[in-house]
Amino acid sequence: MMNPLLLPEIRMMLAEGDAEGMAALVNDLHPASVAEFTEGLSDEEIWALLGHGDVERQADIFSFFPEERQLELAEGVGRERMSQLLGAMSHDDRVDFLKRVDPQAVESLLPLMAKADREDIRKLLSYPEGSAGSMMTTDYATLLPDITVEEAINRLRQQATQKETIYYIYVTNEDRKLLGFVSLRHLILAKLNALVRDIMQSDVVYVRVDLDQEEVARIVGKYDFIAIPVVDNDHRIVGIITHDDALDVVVEEATEDAQRMGGMAPLEEPYLDVPFTTMWRKRAVWLSCLFVAEFFTFSAMSRYEKVMEEHVVLAMFTVLCISTGGNSGSQAATLITRAMALGHIGVRQWWTVIRHELLMGLALGVSLGIIGFLRVMIPVLTPTSVIGAVDRLTLSFVIGQTVAAICLWGTLVGSILPMIFTKLGFDPGYASSPFVATFVDVTGIVIYFSIAKMYLF
Amino acid sequence: MMNPLLLPEIRMMLAEGDAEGMAALVNDLHPASVAEFTEGLSDEEIWALLGHGDVERQADIFSFFPEERQLELAEGVGRERMSQLLGAMSHDDRVDFLKRVDPQAVESLLPLMAKADREDIRKLLSYPEGSAGSMMTTDYATLLPDITVEEAINRLRQQATQKETIYYIYVTNEDRKLLGFVSLRHLILAKLNALVRDIMQSDVVYVRVDLDQEEVARIVGKYDFIAIPVVDNDHRIVGIITHDDALDVVVEEATEDAQRMGGMAPLEEPYLDVPFTTMWRKRAVWLSCLFVAEFFTFSAMSRYEKVMEEHVVLAMFTVLCISTGGNSGSQAATLITRAMALGHIGVRQWWTVIRHELLMGLALGVSLGIIGFLRVMIPVLTPTSVIGAVDRLTLSFVIGQTVAAICLWGTLVGSILPMIFTKLGFDPGYASSPFVATFVDVTGIVIYFSIAKMYLF
Repeated sequence: MMNPLLLPEIRMMLAEGDAEGMAALVNDLHPASVAEFTEGLSDEEIWALLGHGDVERQADIFSFFPEERQLELAEGVGRERMSQLLGAMSHDDRVDFLKRVDPQAVESLLPLMAKADREDIRKLLSYPEGSAGSMMTTDYATLLPDITVEEAINRLRQQATQKETIYYIYVTNEDRKLLGFVSLRHLILAKLNALVRDIMQSDVVYVRVDLDQEEVARIVGKYDFIAIPVVDNDHRIVGIITHDDALDVVVEEATEDAQRMGGMAPLEEPYLDVPFTTMWRKRAVWLSCLFVAEFFTFSAMSRYEKVMEEHVVLAMFTVLCISTGGNSGSQAATLITRAMALGHIGVRQWWTVIRHELLMGLALGVSLGIIGFLRVMIPVLTPTSVIGAVDRLTLSFVIGQTVAAICLWGTLVGSILPMIFTKLGFDPGYASSPFVATFVDVTGIVIYFSIAKMYLF
Repeated sequence: MMNPLLLPEIRMMLAEGDAEGMAALVNDLHPASVAEFTEGLSDEEIWALLGHGDVERQADIFSFFPEERQLELAEGVGRERMSQLLGAMSHDDRVDFLKRVDPQAVESLLPLMAKADREDIRKLLSYPEGSAGSMMTTDYATLLPDITVEEAINRLRQQATQKETIYYIYVTNEDRKLLGFVSLRHLILAKLNALVRDIMQSDVVYVRVDLDQEEVARIVGKYDFIAIPVVDNDHRIVGIITHDDALDVVVEEATEDAQRMGGMAPLEEPYLDVPFTTMWRKRAVWLSCLFVAEFFTFSAMSRYEKVMEEHVVLAMFTVLCISTGGNSGSQAATLITRAMALGHIGVRQWWTVIRHELLMGLALGVSLGIIGFLRVMIPVLTPTSVIGAVDRLTLSFVIGQTVAAICLWGTLVGSILPMIFTKLGFDPGYASSPFVATFVDVTGIVIYFSIAKMYLF
C-alpha cells in the first residue's frame, strides 16, 4: 500500500536478475499486495518471482491470487513444487483450492505430500459444501490443561509458525475433547507458574461440524470472535473457523441472496469472469420460467374480453393497478427475507409477521387507494373522452378499491412466500421480486376485473 | 453456550441473594451470552446482577445489549454508575452508544468522566457517520521503534487490559506518525533482545480517517486483518478498526442494499423493533412515488385506445409483454449493483458492462421472443376465438418481436441505471427492482403498441 510497485518495474527486476529487489518485493509486502501487484505477469514470471521467498511465504501469496489464476499457476508448475507449496498452505486455503482442481490432478499431487497432510486433506474434502466442516481449518493451537503458563508459552513459540492463529488457544483433554480456551492476551498477562486449567475460560462457544455456514458466520459476528472452535458429535475439537472466513461467507451469502432476489441463479464468480453461456443460462432459466408463468395473465384477461370490449378504459388501467401488487410484494418479500437472513425473525414467528404485514398492507393499501381514487376523479389526469360511457365516480371507486386490495394482497404474498419457502427447505430468496411480481400480476388481474364487474355490470 | 441458564433460575438467584451463583453467571460466560440470557429481566434486575462483576466486565456485557435496551438501562441507573461504566467501555462502543443518547444526557454525563475520556469522546463524536473515523476505536496499543522485544512485551502486559486488541501493535515515532506494525505472534517468536524496529513490518496497510466505511470493510476483508490502522492527513495514527466492526458494516450495508433493491428506504433497526408509523412511512413513500410514476402507463395506453378498440386481443397481451422488461431489468440491476458493491466492476468500466449487457439482452431477448412467438402460434394456448380478426402468424410476430425488444430494453436499462446513479453520487441500490420495473413498464407499452401498429395497421 505504501509503495505500490508497478508491473514494468517488476519486469525490469526480473530481466536484470535483481535478486535483492525481488526478495524485498516478495517478503516485505503483505501477501495480498504481492498477489495484486503481480497479477499482470505471466505464470512463469510469477513463479520466478515467488522463488525469492521461502515456501511458507510463497504459499501465503499463492492463496491470495484469484481462483482462476491459482488454477493456471498450478498447471504451469511441476508437481514437485506444487506439492511443497500445498504442504505449506493453511489447511483451509489448500482444501478450497483442491476442490476446484480436477480430481485426477489432486490424486497425482497427494502421493508427493506428507502422510499427515494427505489425511488432513482427505478429511477436510469429505465435509459437505456449506457446512462448518467445509469452512474450517485444522491448523489450530491446542494445549493440555495441566501445564503451567510458562510451559504453554514455550509450546506456542514452537507451534506458532504453522498455525492459522495462536490468539485463541484451545484446551483439550488427551482425547481432544474441548475443555476450554485461553486467549494469548490472557496468557501473557497471567502468572508464569499458574496452571492453564485455572486461567482458561471454560464456557466455550463452539459450533458443530455440520452446522450451516451462514449460521456459523452469524455466531462469529454475534460474539466478535477471532476464531470459533468446531467440534464433532463426541465434543472433540476437529477444527476452527477464523473471522476472515466468516466475513467471506457473509459477503458470499449476501451476494447470493441479492442475485436470487433479482431473479437469477447465484453466480459463483465475479461478474466479468463468468463465461457468457453460463451467465446466459443462469439468467435465461429464471426469465423463461417467469415468462411462462406470465402466460396466465393472458388467460386471466381473456376471461374478461367482453368487459374490456365494452369499456376499453378498463384495459388502460390494468398495468397501473397490478403494478402496485408487484411493488408492494417486492418490498415485503425483501424485508422479510433479509430479516430472516439476519436472524431477526424466524418461521416460528409467522403469525406475528402475518399480523404485522396485514395491518401494514391495509395502511399502505388505503394510502395508495386514495391516490388512485383522486387520480381518476381529476379530469386533467383522466380525460372524460377516455372514460367513455363509464360514470367517473364509479370508476374512481373501482380503481381506488382495486389498488388498495392489490396492494394488501401483494404485501401479504410477499411476506408469506419467503416463510413458506423456508419451511419447505428452499432458500427464502427464491421469493424474489420478479417471482412475487409475476404471481401477483396474475391474481391481480382477477381481483381488478372482479371489482370492476361488481360495480359496472 | 454450554450452560444456557434460564430466566427463572436467574430470578431465583436474585431473590435468594445467591452471590456466588450470580458472580459465576456474570464472570464466567461470554459477555454476549450474559446479555442474551438476561434480556427478559427488568432494568433493576439487570443492574443488580451486573453488580457482581467488576466495572470492566459490566461494560463488556452492557455493549452486547441491543441498542434500545442500552438506552432503557441507562435511564434506569444513576449518572455516577453510568459514567463509570462509560469509562470502562471500549472507546468505539461507548461512542456508538452516546450517539443514540439524547445530547442533553450526554452533556450531563461527560463532566463526571476523566478528562482524557471526555476529550476522546468529543473527538470520536466529531467524525461524520459512515466514515472510517466513525467506526474506529482509540484504545489501540502502540510502541516506539527503539525498544527491545523484551521491553515491548513488558509494556504490553501493562497496556493489555485497557486495549481493544493487542494482537496487532502499531509502531510510531514520537509524533505518532505510523512507522510500522508488529503482530503479537511475531513478538513472542522474536529474540528478546531484538529491536522492535528490526522485527516490525514497515509496509502497513492503513486507511484515512475520512474513507467510506464500506471501502474500509472491503480492505479489511481483502487482507484478512484482525485490525487496520486509521491515519490522519499527516500520517499520524488516530485509531484502529477491528475485524468485528468491519463485519458489522458488511452486514449493515448488505441489509441496506437489499432494502433499497426491494424498493424501500433502509431501516435502521431489526424488523420487529421498527415502530409501525416509521415502517409505514419508509414503505409508503417509495410505493407512492412508484405508483405515481405508473400513472404514465395509463397515459401511454390511452394513446392507443383506437388500436385496442379494434383488436382487444392486444390489450390482453400487454401485461405478458411488459412484465418481461421488469423481470430482465430487475435481474440486470441486481447483478450490476451487487458487482459494484463487491468492487468487481466500477463506473469506469461502463462500456464493458454495456457491451456485455447488450449482447446478453439480445441473447435473452431472442430466447424469450421465440417462446412468445410459439405461445401465440399454438392454438391451444391462444384460442382463435380470442384472436378475433387478426392473422395468427402476424400476431405471433408482433408478440415475439415485442418480447425480444422489451427484454433487451429492460436489460439495458437495468444495467445502466445503477451506473448512472453512482455517477450522480446516489446509491446504485436506488435502481431497485420496482423502480426499474416501473420505468420499463411505461416505455414497454410504447414499444409494444408501436410494433403492433407497424404490423397491423
